[in-house]
Amino acid sequence: MTGLESKRPISRYAVPKPEDLPQDLRDRILAVQEKSGFVPNVFLAYARRPEEFRAFFAYHDALMEKESGLTKAEREMIVVATSGANGCQYCVVAHGAILRVRSKNPLLADQVAVNYLEADITPRQRAMLRFAMKIALDSRHVAEEDFGALRQHGFSDDDIWDIAAIASFFALSNRMANFLGMRPNDEFYLLGRVPRPERR
Amino acid sequence: MTGLESKRPISRYAVPKPEDLPQDLRDRILAVQEKSGFVPNVFLAYARRPEEFRAFFAYHDALMEKESGLTKAEREMIVVATSGANGCQYCVVAHGAILRVRSKNPLLADQVAVNYLEADITPRQRAMLRFAMKIALDSRHVAEEDFGALRQHGFSDDDIWDIAAIASFFALSNRMANFLGMRPNDEFYLLGRVPRPERR
Amino acid sequence: MTGLESKRPISRYAVPKPEDLPQDLRDRILAVQEKSGFVPNVFLAYARRPEEFRAFFAYHDALMEKESGLTKAEREMIVVATSGANGCQYCVVAHGAILRVRSKNPLLADQVAVNYLEADITPRQRAMLRFAMKIALDSRHVAEEDFGALRQHGFSDDDIWDIAAIASFFALSNRMANFLGMRPNDEFYLLGRVPRPERR
Amino acid sequence: MTGLESKRPISRYAVPKPEDLPQDLRDRILAVQEKSGFVPNVFLAYARRPEEFRAFFAYHDALMEKESGLTKAEREMIVVATSGANGCQYCVVAHGAILRVRSKNPLLADQVAVNYLEADITPRQRAMLRFAMKIALDSRHVAEEDFGALRQHGFSDDDIWDIAAIASFFALSNRMANFLGMRPNDEFYLLGRVPRPERR
Amino acid sequence: MTGLESKRPISRYAVPKPEDLPQDLRDRILAVQEKSGFVPNVFLAYARRPEEFRAFFAYHDALMEKESGLTKAEREMIVVATSGANGCQYCVVAHGAILRVRSKNPLLADQVAVNYLEADITPRQRAMLRFAMKIALDSRHVAEEDFGALRQHGFSDDDIWDIAAIASFFALSNRMANFLGMRPNDEFYLLGRVPRPERR
Amino acid sequence: MTGLESKRPISRYAVPKPEDLPQDLRDRILAVQEKSGFVPNVFLAYARRPEEFRAFFAYHDALMEKESGLTKAEREMIVVATSGANGCQYCVVAHGAILRVRSKNPLLADQVAVNYLEADITPRQRAMLRFAMKIALDSRHVAEEDFGALRQHGFSDDDIWDIAAIASFFALSNRMANFLGMRPNDEFYLLGRVPRPERR
Repeated sequence: MTGLESKRPISRYAVPKPEDLPQDLRDRILAVQEKSGFVPNVFLAYARRPEEFRAFFAYHDALMEKESGLTKAEREMIVVATSGANGCQYCVVAHGAILRVRSKNPLLADQVAVNYLEADITPRQRAMLRFAMKIALDSRHVAEEDFGALRQHGFSDDDIWDIAAIASFFALSNRMANFLGMRPNDEFYLLGRVPRPERR
Repeated sequence: MTGLESKRPISRYAVPKPEDLPQDLRDRILAVQEKSGFVPNVFLAYARRPEEFRAFFAYHDALMEKESGLTKAEREMIVVATSGANGCQYCVVAHGAILRVRSKNPLLADQVAVNYLEADITPRQRAMLRFAMKIALDSRHVAEEDFGALRQHGFSDDDIWDIAAIASFFALSNRMANFLGMRPNDEFYLLGRVPRPERR
Repeated sequence: MTGLESKRPISRYAVPKPEDLPQDLRDRILAVQEKSGFVPNVFLAYARRPEEFRAFFAYHDALMEKESGLTKAEREMIVVATSGANGCQYCVVAHGAILRVRSKNPLLADQVAVNYLEADITPRQRAMLRFAMKIALDSRHVAEEDFGALRQHGFSDDDIWDIAAIASFFALSNRMANFLGMRPNDEFYLLGRVPRPERR
Repeated sequence: MTGLESKRPISRYAVPKPEDLPQDLRDRILAVQEKSGFVPNVFLAYARRPEEFRAFFAYHDALMEKESGLTKAEREMIVVATSGANGCQYCVVAHGAILRVRSKNPLLADQVAVNYLEADITPRQRAMLRFAMKIALDSRHVAEEDFGALRQHGFSDDDIWDIAAIASFFALSNRMANFLGMRPNDEFYLLGRVPRPERR
Repeated sequence: MTGLESKRPISRYAVPKPEDLPQDLRDRILAVQEKSGFVPNVFLAYARRPEEFRAFFAYHDALMEKESGLTKAEREMIVVATSGANGCQYCVVAHGAILRVRSKNPLLADQVAVNYLEADITPRQRAMLRFAMKIALDSRHVAEEDFGALRQHGFSDDDIWDIAAIASFFALSNRMANFLGMRPNDEFYLLGRVPRPERR
Repeated sequence: MTGLESKRPISRYAVPKPEDLPQDLRDRILAVQEKSGFVPNVFLAYARRPEEFRAFFAYHDALMEKESGLTKAEREMIVVATSGANGCQYCVVAHGAILRVRSKNPLLADQVAVNYLEADITPRQRAMLRFAMKIALDSRHVAEEDFGALRQHGFSDDDIWDIAAIASFFALSNRMANFLGMRPNDEFYLLGRVPRPERR
């Protein structure tokens, strides 16, 4: 490249120093660093507001880490598809990485981010993403028919809540990331793309 | 009316009985009932999922109850304007009531819900709502110019975060309420419309 | 509130003095004042142009006051729903009041203004509003199927014309009110909200 | 062509016979026939509803026939541009013909119907059409700046009202024509395209 | 008109002189002039870039001149309908003329340009244009159902490719014409409108 | 994954066998295979139509391979940004790979595909992409101001043509790829992501 471009910072807002953070935030950040090998920038960007940090990640974990009729990979598909529709670079790149890891499929995230209708997914997953996109883009028109269509694919009422809740939570997350101009860590881009035989 | 219309239920999902709820949810619901005289349906609808309930209200309180450069009435304006844009009946009706109470202005909520450009608000508040609507409807195009325009009206960087965070949180809340078909309590419709001299 | 906000005027354009108006306009204005107890601002704003005033209210009355297969309350629902979609504060507030009065339902107007899909109405009324919204927002795609769907709910061809004509007339009215920045009278906000036992 | 296509009727609704019409409608229809050499279908389609017929044409004449700071050709430009944006075949074809006749320019109507930004018009006319399009498509965002921009081109406040009122009236007219599937008379297509030397 | 309007030039970019053009471009231009009696401006505007000129017209001819299950008139309908949707004045006016000539129908082009749903065409042609519009405006949502709907009207897979390819090619052409502000030749406006008895 | 998902085929249409292709197509395909190590599916999908194949790639090469004031990486940025906006999976994945290779930047393609406003690019490149997006999404509103803004960043008139022509060509390409459901080769996903030291 020309050398003139600036590498964007983590966030439009200054990021607090670790030593200035409350203990529970430091613990959480330390834990993710140990697990992932790096600290995803979303933790640093939100750390400026400890109360919002706690609620944000509590909500995230309640949806993304619990037992569910949706696999963890399916939940990440919802994140990637709706974040693409919202133009959220951080979420597409970061959750695209997680989707590759969780699905053990190096192609799926890029497919879903641009156009889930042409992704290598099952008809059931396509119905799931159609509904997630309606929640993301046109929730005012949700109607009984939407529930019927999902039940035909075997989704339970709790599964349907999960789809809607994940799309809704990332409606929040995408807007905050766009607002902050949150930068995806460089590490995310390659994650899950190259098979790592020793871990399989 | 014709008598044929059905009065919609609180939520598309069954609402748990109070005695089946974890103690902290019961306490919270009891507290709001004592303060308001009734239990807003959002508490019942979310109670089906205690983890999400806790995170949702923790996030809500972190934004709406804390000290801020925005008055509580201004924060409710953001909720009402963006919820109107998202077609969220519950949030417009419920937070419209809170806006009337907090602004001591019985007209403002209905004005802001339909078209904030023609509401009885200050130019500073109009700039605040313009940015909130951009977060709600077109966050991918947020840019430095938006920050400059807000700073000219005296908003601090933390105030701007508050605007964006409230619009983002209700992006979540509006979608969940539309998904659940959440019904506003009848009590909200009249709240703050009739002057109550003894409280002034 | 802060005391800095300005209370908007009736219209962006100067409003003529009653004594400068042609006799027929004065008569009409006097009549509405006697019936309602106040003069809705739309009469004053349009009075600047007597020819347009006469045609506007003649059209209005031809649709809203005549015998029809639609009740008067149903016609007001069409006004409120489409005016909400067009961001017309005057029409939502003023016709919301009329809808409350005519339906004897204090909740319906606020429900319909934000999202008619979640209002306490019959399936027939929901079909009526679906078509009215198509006329308001996407009339180029009206097709035979739309007529079939309405006939299934028992609407006659003349009823369907009424739905379309009302949505079309308020397409005009909403645009003029938005253009003029027309202010709803304060009286409208409370009308029909509090049961008036002596009148029932 | 293949011979399989059907030539659409004048309107989706049956058109009344002349002898069944009230006298004033018959007079009006007779007058236009004498002046134009044919009866534009809008007169027949609306004749099914005499009250609406009278109000519609009274409104039309109040805007399109009176003295104004806008020439009659300019007023027809507003009709053609906004009707194109609304997908109204009747109004584009019929008023395109009138625009050709009134502007004595055989090219202008087709240019304005598709994209007024590339029509052979003055910068003042371009500003006029920009505002007319905002009224037609996005009236909720009309603001003081719009008035300033028009005044810079020499438009008076009454001229600006005329622009907005014409765009608003045809918002109604376009929707009714789309609803009725109103067919433009064959005569309109050629009108004003071929110079008629004897009339110049 | 007022005499103040400027007649727009052929293109925003300078048009090369014929003698400066490569021989094959000159030959092509000469051929079209002999056939049509004038040089459509698209040939002059593109001549600035000989490589792109050659590819553009090769692509055009591959779609519009070959044998196909679609008649030449039907192919021009696709051009006119999608160009209208894209606001491309040059293509609507120029290909509207060709459509009139090829269909021997002086009304069809103006009908299709504004709203094909109300044009004098067959149900099969309406299905063809519905798909062409989806390609033009919303190709990301093309799905198997679209193919099924077309096959029911007797379109072969190669016919469907032709519909999509023509709509896609004019997606390019419309954008270049809008970019260049390409002016339709005056000759196009009248072409095919007046019956020429000697040719019939 | 579940094992139920189907891996989509190269195209919705059958792909011809190499031995059935005209010699020039076979030569072109052989050449790209030797250069890249695999045959991008776009060559196979288009091969069904040799005339369109030739015109398509002639157009492509005329824009993407020639000398230009835009670097080859910048031209690929235009492709990736506009293809993302059009939901074209093939073009985002395939040209994303080429952009990584040509920019020697493994992060840029994913950034630009989702939201170019937050990519690591120069202000000049941001202005270039803003205009490319206007051509892709809203070409009817291109105006003189757009040219002025680009010239301020040092773009020549020929550079501006290049930007517009590339965005226009991929308007065609994206629609055809969406129509065909064209599958990106697996090879593209990893290309340019891992530094290859021997080539630097």
